[in-house]
Amino acid sequence: MTSQVSPTQDDGVPAQPRWLDAEEQRAWRAWLYSTTLLEDRLERDLTHSAGVSSAYYEILVQLSEAPERRMRMSQLADRCLASRSRLSHAVSRLEERGWVAREVCVEDGRGQLAVLTDEGMSALQQAAPVHVASVRTHLFDQLSPTQVAAMRDIGETLLRHLDPR
Amino acid sequence: MTSQVSPTQDDGVPAQPRWLDAEEQRAWRAWLYSTTLLEDRLERDLTHSAGVSSAYYEILVQLSEAPERRMRMSQLADRCLASRSRLSHAVSRLEERGWVAREVCVEDGRGQLAVLTDEGMSALQQAAPVHVASVRTHLFDQLSPTQVAAMRDIGETLLRHLDPR
Repeated sequence: MTSQVSPTQDDGVPAQPRWLDAEEQRAWRAWLYSTTLLEDRLERDLTHSAGVSSAYYEILVQLSEAPERRMRMSQLADRCLASRSRLSHAVSRLEERGWVAREVCVEDGRGQLAVLTDEGMSALQQAAPVHVASVRTHLFDQLSPTQVAAMRDIGETLLRHLDPR
Repeated sequence: MTSQVSPTQDDGVPAQPRWLDAEEQRAWRAWLYSTTLLEDRLERDLTHSAGVSSAYYEILVQLSEAPERRMRMSQLADRCLASRSRLSHAVSRLEERGWVAREVCVEDGRGQLAVLTDEGMSALQQAAPVHVASVRTHLFDQLSPTQVAAMRDIGETLLRHLDPR
């Protein structure tokens, strides 16, 4: 992303877009770098404390909040913003640890459920306070209430476009 | 991340943190989901148009803006917020495409430079307009000027904490 690269004018090249102006450039870079560094930091803290990545952690969280700690694989993929194949791979890794189990869905005999085991719940309970402390230290402790409100407003505005369910 | 998981009270478990309140939870979820979906969308558009991921694209951008289109590998890693090993791997992949070359640094005979080739510059010039259009469509076109200013303010505030260089 840069304003200093000009597109070539050959045939077949997309028409020149409206390049980002100076204010947009600064906003874009600030967003890009801060989200990258924040994600890296939270991931590092989570891996250190829980031994799992944030994607795996989110699976445990979603299952812990579901009725009877179980959810259809397809719904779990939606909730975790993951593809079916990526979720299936992650659940297999969590099964190896004994944190998640798979069951056939009894309601219709088709489809699979993912279930959070007692061991998985225990692992989540160990990791959660460390993760919350990390989010507080590196995000909320840095921002004013006005900035937190703006962050939510921007996030929800983008979600209406990106995920209009 | 959830307020509904309580930590166990066994010895050795970190002290209970201040859990996120309802407003913080909503802000956190909105940020987490919107950044995940935005990154996925930009990545998909970039891979489709340029055949490279955003991490590789950033390497091309940084080199294109450097004097003589070359930069020390260590400096390039810093600029791309990448570890040395991850950057080295990415540069190797870009070398295979003929988009980047490595040179020994003539100034001190130690260290390596990464150089953007003419082919790499051409690839960047093809990809840049598509990428800018994608960023505009999925980010800036969705936000008011006030929201863009707030996004920059929040990002710069977080950067002062996360990357206090």
